Amino acid sequence: MDAKSPIIKVTTGPLPASRKVYLSGFQYPDIRVPVREIDLHETANEPPVRVYDTSGPYTDPNAHIDINAGLPRIREAWIKARGDVEEYSGRDVKPEDNGGATGKDLVGEFPNKQKPLRAKAGKAVTQIAYARQGIITPEMEFIAIRENLGCEKASDSLRDGESFGAEIPDLITPEFVRDEVARGRAIIPANINHPESEPQIIGRNFLVKINANIGNSAVTSSMAEEVDKMVWATRWGADNVMDLSTGRNIHNIREWIIRNSPVPIGTVPMYQALEKVEGRPEELTWEIYRDTLIEQAEQGVDYFTIHAGVRLAYVPMTANRVTGIVSRGGSVMAKWCLAHHEESFLYTNFEEICEIMRAYDVAFSLGDGLRPGSIADGNDEAQFAELETLGELCKIAWKRDCQVMIEGPGHVPMHKIKVNMEKQLKECDEAPFYTLGPLTTDIAPGYDHITSGIGAAIIGWYGCAMLCYVTPKEHLGLPDRDDVKVGVVTYKIASHAADIAKGHPAARERDDALSRARFEFRWQDQFNLALDPETAKDFHDQTMPKEAHKVAHFCSMCGPKFCAMKISHEVKEQFSEQEKGMAEKSREFLEGGAEIYKDTAAE
Amino acid sequence: MDAKSPIIKVTTGPLPASRKVYLSGFQYPDIRVPVREIDLHETANEPPVRVYDTSGPYTDPNAHIDINAGLPRIREAWIKARGDVEEYSGRDVKPEDNGGATGKDLVGEFPNKQKPLRAKAGKAVTQIAYARQGIITPEMEFIAIRENLGCEKASDSLRDGESFGAEIPDLITPEFVRDEVARGRAIIPANINHPESEPQIIGRNFLVKINANIGNSAVTSSMAEEVDKMVWATRWGADNVMDLSTGRNIHNIREWIIRNSPVPIGTVPMYQALEKVEGRPEELTWEIYRDTLIEQAEQGVDYFTIHAGVRLAYVPMTANRVTGIVSRGGSVMAKWCLAHHEESFLYTNFEEICEIMRAYDVAFSLGDGLRPGSIADGNDEAQFAELETLGELCKIAWKRDCQVMIEGPGHVPMHKIKVNMEKQLKECDEAPFYTLGPLTTDIAPGYDHITSGIGAAIIGWYGCAMLCYVTPKEHLGLPDRDDVKVGVVTYKIASHAADIAKGHPAARERDDALSRARFEFRWQDQFNLALDPETAKDFHDQTMPKEAHKVAHFCSMCGPKFCAMKISHEVKEQFSEQEKGMAEKSREFLEGGAEIYKDTAAE
Repeated sequence: MDAKSPIIKVTTGPLPASRKVYLSGFQYPDIRVPVREIDLHETANEPPVRVYDTSGPYTDPNAHIDINAGLPRIREAWIKARGDVEEYSGRDVKPEDNGGATGKDLVGEFPNKQKPLRAKAGKAVTQIAYARQGIITPEMEFIAIRENLGCEKASDSLRDGESFGAEIPDLITPEFVRDEVARGRAIIPANINHPESEPQIIGRNFLVKINANIGNSAVTSSMAEEVDKMVWATRWGADNVMDLSTGRNIHNIREWIIRNSPVPIGTVPMYQALEKVEGRPEELTWEIYRDTLIEQAEQGVDYFTIHAGVRLAYVPMTANRVTGIVSRGGSVMAKWCLAHHEESFLYTNFEEICEIMRAYDVAFSLGDGLRPGSIADGNDEAQFAELETLGELCKIAWKRDCQVMIEGPGHVPMHKIKVNMEKQLKECDEAPFYTLGPLTTDIAPGYDHITSGIGAAIIGWYGCAMLCYVTPKEHLGLPDRDDVKVGVVTYKIASHAADIAKGHPAARERDDALSRARFEFRWQDQFNLALDPETAKDFHDQTMPKEAHKVAHFCSMCGPKFCAMKISHEVKEQFSEQEKGMAEKSREFLEGGAEIYKDTAAE
Repeated sequence: MDAKSPIIKVTTGPLPASRKVYLSGFQYPDIRVPVREIDLHETANEPPVRVYDTSGPYTDPNAHIDINAGLPRIREAWIKARGDVEEYSGRDVKPEDNGGATGKDLVGEFPNKQKPLRAKAGKAVTQIAYARQGIITPEMEFIAIRENLGCEKASDSLRDGESFGAEIPDLITPEFVRDEVARGRAIIPANINHPESEPQIIGRNFLVKINANIGNSAVTSSMAEEVDKMVWATRWGADNVMDLSTGRNIHNIREWIIRNSPVPIGTVPMYQALEKVEGRPEELTWEIYRDTLIEQAEQGVDYFTIHAGVRLAYVPMTANRVTGIVSRGGSVMAKWCLAHHEESFLYTNFEEICEIMRAYDVAFSLGDGLRPGSIADGNDEAQFAELETLGELCKIAWKRDCQVMIEGPGHVPMHKIKVNMEKQLKECDEAPFYTLGPLTTDIAPGYDHITSGIGAAIIGWYGCAMLCYVTPKEHLGLPDRDDVKVGVVTYKIASHAADIAKGHPAARERDDALSRARFEFRWQDQFNLALDPETAKDFHDQTMPKEAHKVAHFCSMCGPKFCAMKISHEVKEQFSEQEKGMAEKSREFLEGGAEIYKDTAAE
């Protein structure tokens, strides 16, 4: 390591009883799809449980981690092999890109900078463009393998409820991935300048994804903390990370994050553009904004939140809201529109934005700048007017071979969530929906991971493709490392509950393995299969810390005499030994009617 | 205080900015219905927000709290005035009632014991019996006042979603309460020997209630801790507390809890009966169980979980389950049935149980001994066979003038929850449903308050009347004080989200008050209106601790330049000052079509 390079500590090493394995492809034998295998106790007599792994090389003990060098550029060869990109010198970094920070206030540049790529003239280098041409990219095969984990053991016994139109096949093939991307029903966020990222898909016929927001604010947090949060968030299962930094040093912090991120990175370019005009929305111009898009596209941001649906005419619709406009980007654009009394420059320049997005394969995340900020404002006129415009813009982007997802609320009571989902599918022709929660009540600041986790699980079940996490600090302050973990685990619960309810063929495998471990008192397996093994073990050990307790056939909740599962084992044993004929008797009973049996028993 | 009496510390005093007020009745002017008033900052220019208050005298600074004396017996005069009860000497406490504990192991008797009451011969002293006779009891008027808080300000703007058959009137009258109790669609758990309790109703056309489980186990916890947990749970909003103690000293611990509890107390009498036969299910007899019912009814337990639906013939249906039988009472009865190869003595003696319940007004909570313990076992044959039997028993109990609710699961994926609720309503003729969660995935031990909070919110919306909390320690160990609080707050979120979704006319008032405080940067009001003001304030203060920050127009999440709500205020101001005609323009725009406007803006 260079003596002058900063020392950044991130959490590495495998999770308990876990091993990183890599699966290879068929069409592309060289791709290495990461999988986490969780070993079970020998008494289980079961193979290891394979789970989807978002954590990148950090959990691979064989990987050499050097934050100053960045992660291996696994997609670089695939991108260059397509022959449609060119390297160029790129835009010069300007002082205002870092908010004018200098000297010791300036976060150092990432040491291992590469020249950016862009599409050759006339080429569309987006995954949707390839998909429409019938090309299965290495990214697509990578994704098919990843999404299929456990499908070989899948049962469809859970496919007997309401699935709200999800059409998940028993086996996810590369061709299925291609088809879903081609029709715009799924996106693969994969900027050609972020070759370090492991391909991932967002769409309602795939596993529900989650996003973790990180980023410094003008008040708190530093670069090292943000890189650590990114690694930490992916360790616990974040499929995507958005860097929402707003203070100084935005450019340099982002570079450190992207170069070290195994997952797609999203941003809201407006935040940086606004810093360039010192926080005065009315001074924003299309030129400054456009330059910021190119700056970030060259760095490798995989998707941009663009609030192009906040049109001048919609601003008055927010005047009588209880909580006005609560999206930062939305409020900035509303202010700009009013100050100039002009239509939003994001809306009027939308086609040029498409050109930029297509040249780097940055996906659109069409922002809901008018999302409701309270139960009172849920599903109101402003929100739905903007959603209709997002549908219109989605189709323009599709025409230009761009990938698109649509952002959604926010704060919505449970009984109004379905209306949101249905309207989004209709207006946006099934483009993936990406919501923040939604929060189902406003009365629990400090617990908004839970108020929103409820809404997130429900909307995921209804068809939302990605859930943006909410941490316990929401509405109160910038989340720290612990908050990030709680937010991620809560949203893994919501997305997984949704996968089960949607009837994803492999979703239940881990639940069943954990339930078997629970019933057989394999405590260590129960911890290891948990979303958060450390917390599960810690909670158990608070009352029963000894090693011997890890094989005890009870816990402190009920004590040894009252453990239902212990008694249930005795019942099972007794039943199988002494009551072989009982299953038959039981059948007779059911056929003959309960009363007859009652008389017999009373004899 | 008696020098020999134990010193038990419980948390007293009001919540921040809160004042206890008492409302009086019309038919019964002497009743004092407790209400918490939360004062807002003077700049709010709003009256205090009134919220439902479960915390009893402990939060009233004018109340004299003496754990050794017990709470005031507010219902005693009402009960005696009905002229249908008699005082008697009651059953003698036996050593086995406390598991044979002696000397320093024996928890001391509650010092201020009273003689029990029971119904005079031939009298039914249950709330359902009175309701059927057309009598509005003081309990019913008390409840009507409690349930109506905020209804005068209610709007029905939220009544535009799916409410799944809830029929909540705009004004809850004592007559409506009576009618719902008479038809068995709601219960008032109110043992005549628990006159300290503040009346409360459980039914789908009322606010969704929550229950907190406490109780020692053979492994851990003491009497003082359990009394403290009970007070603590009600402070944060537990409507009911179940004492699930299983070790020694069950009788004496329960007495201390009941005498000091402002909320109804439930138990599972089987737990104590089993202690009396030293944990050997096969040695249980109807006589021991019956004697335990009388013991607990005399003490004042308000509802009993009775697993009378676990019939001999259903036991084999659990043999191939992933997690067998996970209800403690259910597993005990299954073992008893198999050991004797006889029908359950709870089932065969059900009518005699009804006689006991009626003599004290103990409500039935018909236990779901065969509830699923994993996603894999959700909605299976065993679960539904038992539910059908519970429906049969419910109608027998109603014939005998007993109050009944029905217990439900457990572990159920989201898409199977509605089937549960619908089947319960059908089989049990709309008797109140009382579920444990349900947990919507098995993979998050350590976070099962969240996995289950999702299911609880959904089933509450669908019509479940009471939600039994699950704490973060579920499956791992006995919850401590902190776990109890997290469990209660999580379930207040779930029940409140359900109340909003069901269209309860007053549910949203607190959300709206908090949202207004949020939009106006009244930080202190935002904390005070929160379900957990302490945590909200603590989270805020972690990054912005100064007093001046309590009026800051931003927080550390976005910093001052990026606060959407701050900008939104500027937008609102600008809009109202400079753009008076814009609302009209907006209307023109919408009527004329978006394209026309775009052309105008581009001029």
